[in-house]
Amino acid sequence: MAIDEELADLARRLQDACVGRHLTVATAESCTGGLVAHAITSIAGSSDYFRGAIVAYENGIKESLLGVPADVLAAHGAVSAQTARAMATGVRERTGVDLAVSVTGIAGPGGGSDAKPVGLAYLATASARGVEVQRHAWADDRAGNIRLSAIAALEMLLAAADAAAENE
Amino acid sequence: MAIDEELADLARRLQDACVGRHLTVATAESCTGGLVAHAITSIAGSSDYFRGAIVAYENGIKESLLGVPADVLAAHGAVSAQTARAMATGVRERTGVDLAVSVTGIAGPGGGSDAKPVGLAYLATASARGVEVQRHAWADDRAGNIRLSAIAALEMLLAAADAAAENE
Repeated sequence: MAIDEELADLARRLQDACVGRHLTVATAESCTGGLVAHAITSIAGSSDYFRGAIVAYENGIKESLLGVPADVLAAHGAVSAQTARAMATGVRERTGVDLAVSVTGIAGPGGGSDAKPVGLAYLATASARGVEVQRHAWADDRAGNIRLSAIAALEMLLAAADAAAENE
Repeated sequence: MAIDEELADLARRLQDACVGRHLTVATAESCTGGLVAHAITSIAGSSDYFRGAIVAYENGIKESLLGVPADVLAAHGAVSAQTARAMATGVRERTGVDLAVSVTGIAGPGGGSDAKPVGLAYLATASARGVEVQRHAWADDRAGNIRLSAIAALEMLLAAADAAAENE
């Protein structure tokens, strides 16, 4: 299956940015379900910088495999800036990478509410520079919301790779 | 991004087979890089049975996150029946699911050898019935080898779901 060109192009640029700077990467994915990791590993040579991913689709897995605190999930919900932050720092610690990204959102068509509608997504990157969080409100269908979140995740990783380089 | 129809159709059938039988599923992926999890979660309602995935692209991650013994990796290599077996049982234990599948292989174009050529893939399912291992030798390009491994993984999960039902 060919990944679409926009995702593949971003993954190629991320690989170039990371391999040249000896930066390693991992992902923690909920609503994207592994698409960010799939896009990254669709590029030959990705094993030179990509370590792995934890797809935490269920909240119990977010706790056990990513170390998201139960009280964060209870207080803010799985789709929140706080959970995105904990997922990114959790996968970074567990894999020992330089740059980690997380995605948690509501892809739809079910699962939305007035406070957290379908299309809402929080993403975070974690690096030695700290954590950055983004909030998005996509307005596409399930496949489109997943794809837009994956694109945003790759763009955040690219920005984090550039920021890491500036720090050198 | 629309997943291709064959993967989506298999994922739909797996969801029907598992949700009706209250079976939960997780994946442990190396060469497929998250594509099996992405195919599963492309279907609305997949959160009713899919718990999560560990994408262990690097050998260190296979040890730390999946519990693959270092001596198994040293003796048999990352692409082996023994590693596939340890990945499947490892992710099943760590996520507490009924059915787990693992994939480890050489997608190419690099990484092949005479003993382990590009396209070689081992898959395993783990359930209460035990472990099943399959060996495949694909002859496609990188994207094709990844896709064929993902299709085989979904087919193994479907067979494991049917076998679990017969056991009831």
